[in-house]
Amino acid sequence: MVKAGIIGSTGYAGQELVRLLLQHKEAEIVWYGSRSYVDETFGSVFGNMFQIVENVCKGDDLHALSREADVIFTATPQGYLASVIDEEILDNCRVIDLSADFRIKDADVYEKWYGIKHESRQLIPEAAYGLCEINREQVKGARLIANPGCYPTCSVLSIYPLAKNGYIDMKTLVIDAKSGTSGAGRGAKIPNLYCEVNENIKAYGVASHRHTPEIEEQLSYAAGEPVTLNFTPHLVPMNRGILVTAYANLKRGVTAEMVRKAYEDAYQDEYFVRLLPEGTCPETRWVEGSNFVDVCPKVDERTGRVIMMGAMDNITKGAAGQAVQNMNLLFGMDEAEGLRFVPVFP
Amino acid sequence: MVKAGIIGSTGYAGQELVRLLLQHKEAEIVWYGSRSYVDETFGSVFGNMFQIVENVCKGDDLHALSREADVIFTATPQGYLASVIDEEILDNCRVIDLSADFRIKDADVYEKWYGIKHESRQLIPEAAYGLCEINREQVKGARLIANPGCYPTCSVLSIYPLAKNGYIDMKTLVIDAKSGTSGAGRGAKIPNLYCEVNENIKAYGVASHRHTPEIEEQLSYAAGEPVTLNFTPHLVPMNRGILVTAYANLKRGVTAEMVRKAYEDAYQDEYFVRLLPEGTCPETRWVEGSNFVDVCPKVDERTGRVIMMGAMDNITKGAAGQAVQNMNLLFGMDEAEGLRFVPVFP
Amino acid sequence: MVKAGIIGSTGYAGQELVRLLLQHKEAEIVWYGSRSYVDETFGSVFGNMFQIVENVCKGDDLHALSREADVIFTATPQGYLASVIDEEILDNCRVIDLSADFRIKDADVYEKWYGIKHESRQLIPEAAYGLCEINREQVKGARLIANPGCYPTCSVLSIYPLAKNGYIDMKTLVIDAKSGTSGAGRGAKIPNLYCEVNENIKAYGVASHRHTPEIEEQLSYAAGEPVTLNFTPHLVPMNRGILVTAYANLKRGVTAEMVRKAYEDAYQDEYFVRLLPEGTCPETRWVEGSNFVDVCPKVDERTGRVIMMGAMDNITKGAAGQAVQNMNLLFGMDEAEGLRFVPVFP
Amino acid sequence: MVKAGIIGSTGYAGQELVRLLLQHKEAEIVWYGSRSYVDETFGSVFGNMFQIVENVCKGDDLHALSREADVIFTATPQGYLASVIDEEILDNCRVIDLSADFRIKDADVYEKWYGIKHESRQLIPEAAYGLCEINREQVKGARLIANPGCYPTCSVLSIYPLAKNGYIDMKTLVIDAKSGTSGAGRGAKIPNLYCEVNENIKAYGVASHRHTPEIEEQLSYAAGEPVTLNFTPHLVPMNRGILVTAYANLKRGVTAEMVRKAYEDAYQDEYFVRLLPEGTCPETRWVEGSNFVDVCPKVDERTGRVIMMGAMDNITKGAAGQAVQNMNLLFGMDEAEGLRFVPVFP
Repeated sequence: MVKAGIIGSTGYAGQELVRLLLQHKEAEIVWYGSRSYVDETFGSVFGNMFQIVENVCKGDDLHALSREADVIFTATPQGYLASVIDEEILDNCRVIDLSADFRIKDADVYEKWYGIKHESRQLIPEAAYGLCEINREQVKGARLIANPGCYPTCSVLSIYPLAKNGYIDMKTLVIDAKSGTSGAGRGAKIPNLYCEVNENIKAYGVASHRHTPEIEEQLSYAAGEPVTLNFTPHLVPMNRGILVTAYANLKRGVTAEMVRKAYEDAYQDEYFVRLLPEGTCPETRWVEGSNFVDVCPKVDERTGRVIMMGAMDNITKGAAGQAVQNMNLLFGMDEAEGLRFVPVFP
Repeated sequence: MVKAGIIGSTGYAGQELVRLLLQHKEAEIVWYGSRSYVDETFGSVFGNMFQIVENVCKGDDLHALSREADVIFTATPQGYLASVIDEEILDNCRVIDLSADFRIKDADVYEKWYGIKHESRQLIPEAAYGLCEINREQVKGARLIANPGCYPTCSVLSIYPLAKNGYIDMKTLVIDAKSGTSGAGRGAKIPNLYCEVNENIKAYGVASHRHTPEIEEQLSYAAGEPVTLNFTPHLVPMNRGILVTAYANLKRGVTAEMVRKAYEDAYQDEYFVRLLPEGTCPETRWVEGSNFVDVCPKVDERTGRVIMMGAMDNITKGAAGQAVQNMNLLFGMDEAEGLRFVPVFP
Repeated sequence: MVKAGIIGSTGYAGQELVRLLLQHKEAEIVWYGSRSYVDETFGSVFGNMFQIVENVCKGDDLHALSREADVIFTATPQGYLASVIDEEILDNCRVIDLSADFRIKDADVYEKWYGIKHESRQLIPEAAYGLCEINREQVKGARLIANPGCYPTCSVLSIYPLAKNGYIDMKTLVIDAKSGTSGAGRGAKIPNLYCEVNENIKAYGVASHRHTPEIEEQLSYAAGEPVTLNFTPHLVPMNRGILVTAYANLKRGVTAEMVRKAYEDAYQDEYFVRLLPEGTCPETRWVEGSNFVDVCPKVDERTGRVIMMGAMDNITKGAAGQAVQNMNLLFGMDEAEGLRFVPVFP
Repeated sequence: MVKAGIIGSTGYAGQELVRLLLQHKEAEIVWYGSRSYVDETFGSVFGNMFQIVENVCKGDDLHALSREADVIFTATPQGYLASVIDEEILDNCRVIDLSADFRIKDADVYEKWYGIKHESRQLIPEAAYGLCEINREQVKGARLIANPGCYPTCSVLSIYPLAKNGYIDMKTLVIDAKSGTSGAGRGAKIPNLYCEVNENIKAYGVASHRHTPEIEEQLSYAAGEPVTLNFTPHLVPMNRGILVTAYANLKRGVTAEMVRKAYEDAYQDEYFVRLLPEGTCPETRWVEGSNFVDVCPKVDERTGRVIMMGAMDNITKGAAGQAVQNMNLLFGMDEAEGLRFVPVFP
């Protein structure tokens, strides 16, 4: 039984972690961390857990927790983990970080986009970027996992096969993404109120969203060249789900068949990535509550572009689900344990 | 392994049955019945099942199916099952009917409220009303289970402890219920279009909804007297969930403590009925995708009334989940097998 | 041209007042009051007003404002107006208060339900309760108008004809109400976040909501007897709209025809109250963005009860629209000026 | 008083036309055409119009109507108008067509994308494309107006200033658009049911949507060169609104200031196009129920691209509102008459 502790268990990603770990056969939760709700029963904060979780929330003493747990999940604000992590913690247990602190290899880039000083630069090199389908082997041996961002997970998996095969002109890449509102977090802010989000769609963070350098870095590894791209997220009036619609010029000579085959080759053995039948558009409703990513490319012969689409649940595969998938890899368990949910519809 | 067949598997309740049975350790689906989608892959109709269910849909030959299956679920229009069921089918297998055909013991009442002639009156007496928490023993031995309606399930469980104890004046009972739109079914009708339902709430079937006699009958058994009541359903712009707010005068001498204790006594051993802490209002979001019913009474000293509230997922506990619970009882399995989901939030 | 000032113009009711007054032919706004946004352009706070309102927000100096304005609208927290109003202000201009401060004639009742000390008890007697359809004459001569609460407006108008005619047993009256989320205000609170409200319905303030004594008082006047009732509000995942479903026993001898006629008599000359055709259920979508209240009673012969239904836009007729209607009455203008909107659908 | 007839008045665009014309000072509706609801009261089909419109729906006898009306609006399926229009009708009155029949100058292109034979090719040359801000003069003298599509209106107005000035490389243009569900029409189809649309986002018509050639044609006129582009629409769970996010490479030497100035020059005298302050993202909620289009470009120095954004109400400016604007131009009235609504929020 893997003992897991969660710091930040009362945010949306944190409580999703709780939901998933409760249904995991080989893990148990030993620490429900939450600054806002210390000493309150977890099941009183999230009524779905009533009578299921009777534990009370604790603070965020990472050192104490590291002595009790085999793995710590940190679903915390940017900069938090980097400011407290040390060798002692990493000697005691593994850490899977759902924040951005260890996702970007170049600390200067991190500091520029996040506007935060990185206080544990020395640990960046060893952190594994936990996009399991692509970095499976790296993850297995790591002490510290940087769990990918929600947009980067969906963007990279939607584009990866063509970037890897050199089929698209990376300079022409544009990613237009749409997310449900749980991605905005559980903070009490006017722009996230029901009446402000409902019956509305807007872009935000245009040309400046923090997930941009993370996507660029990962696609650079795939393409074998530096990548600079446009990434535009939008806020959609729904709870869960991310949809990516990405555009790029196909290189000369690349056919629709080659495109299709690149996806088949990349994902034929991947349980969580479902390549949809030709001509199908991914929809977020079909992955809700699950760890699946549905992808499908569409070649437009008129324009010479390929439209790469992907749909995913932002707090499952985009956060907590992928974190559990990483835990499974770390501890040599079945990679899909605790994650074989059938998506809930409607 | 219990072999299950589903007639009407491509409605909302039908596909929920598929979702639940796929995750049930001791059941397997042997027949995906659907008139509208014969020969189409189930996973192409419901994208959440893509790569999970590769079976194709078949027609509704109940006799053939009864020879292949241990249990048949019928999620079909009113009148269908009564028109085709016979002894041969019931000799071959058990039948759990999600329609209203065998819920009401008085066939004349059925015919009056449903406007349909009942073509299998002789089977009505033996059908067990599958509200498991109340009729557990009856269910176990039955050949034919009438799976309760969604509103009746939530209404009866919310009111039962006080009706049973004779604590309320049944003549004063008013049930005001609210349902998500999946309860209206998957038929292509203008009133169910997104733009007609969204940003709207309305009552419907006022003083005439077909679930009224079913609720009255069940509460009559509990109260030991004939019950006539008002039941008013409302359509809410959300996918899933039923909320019941019921009002009745407390009988003289009944205290808030007695009310609370009646619920505790009735439900302390029931896994799926969660009595919320005093002063808490049930919310549909906390039960979404699960088989839980959250209930809580509130006594109003000023008016001498009690407000009985209950929240439930209309297509899980209100249809498919309860059907699986009935299957578990029928076949001597753990009553909660396949139903121990943590509700999904948000 | 009537000069209007608004204190609290950046809440949902306040900005609706702005929307309505901008389209009013005989009024102009001279003061956009808002503590939170002092010195910011109103059109930068509410993008719908961009290039339409270029004024900046001011503070809440009621005395200064009273010298510039003919009428002041206060869309402010409970207790604010009572703490600042004085004779000087009322000598200078008329005041229409959208808070609850002057709605309840018995200050002790106010203080008990609101938990606030009333600091201007001497002004309570002269305040007119601005439910125009019922108190039209009182409103015309008043210095101070207590603009009714949203739930009371819809509840009272839905029930008034039967209470007035003595057709129902007031002791049996139960009001089950449902509101869109704008009624919860624009405060940054977790329970009002999109992901907390969406895909959910719940009751709140059960047996304790502050609008209860206001409804009771107004219905007491209509019925000519003290009224104690149950009022249960529910939060619905939509922006605007209130639906009331009220239940009461008909007195002996009262027929469906008499019920219908009572509504016809009460509202035949009322532009804003639409009595729907027999058998129709009011729906909030049909009144959205307008000052209409749609009502319809339904008699249930089986139970001897009448179900009284009403639908209304909570921030138009339930707040800002009715406030403008009161202004029109106060200044001798056409009562419907600035309020003849066709409801927006879908 | 301009006498207006509407064919197809009971679709979403048709009933919006009714809403707008009812509030227009110089127009009156003389014909409510609707095949589905002949002889039914318009106010019984759309409850928002109850007691406001007491007329009954008539059929679609265009010749009879043309003798009664000064202008006919056709909000009808593709191909209908082209199959019935003739010189007699055009001699009698003006026609504003909300379908696509006369939008595309090359009939072969129309037939290819729409899969319909065009039965009035001879009238295509004289039809004016009714995008008022750009084709104002052409519209004024026309007998037949092709009212633009919803996506083309928002797309063209968002991109026009840069296309016109030659500031962007048209070969790199990608348009990613998002629409509320009213754009899908009022037909009773499963994909448009509440539970299918809610909590979901998807792309559709990828590389094949019929609005593509219309957008390409209009932008070709602006740019002075043939344009081929990608246009991808998405379905958003909301009633109204279109958001366009368009991407193109800036030509060498074009600065952010030049971009800004191009929009200022193009729209400074346009009442309905609001250029938002630098750095602001258009949101559909701010234009709901109005004829405004909010636009704003954002230059990304990193990538050399400009992101052109626009938000609009798809059934007002994207259909009925623009049709009224065209009527105003045709009859020499104030272009904004009947359209000066303040957008409704929330």
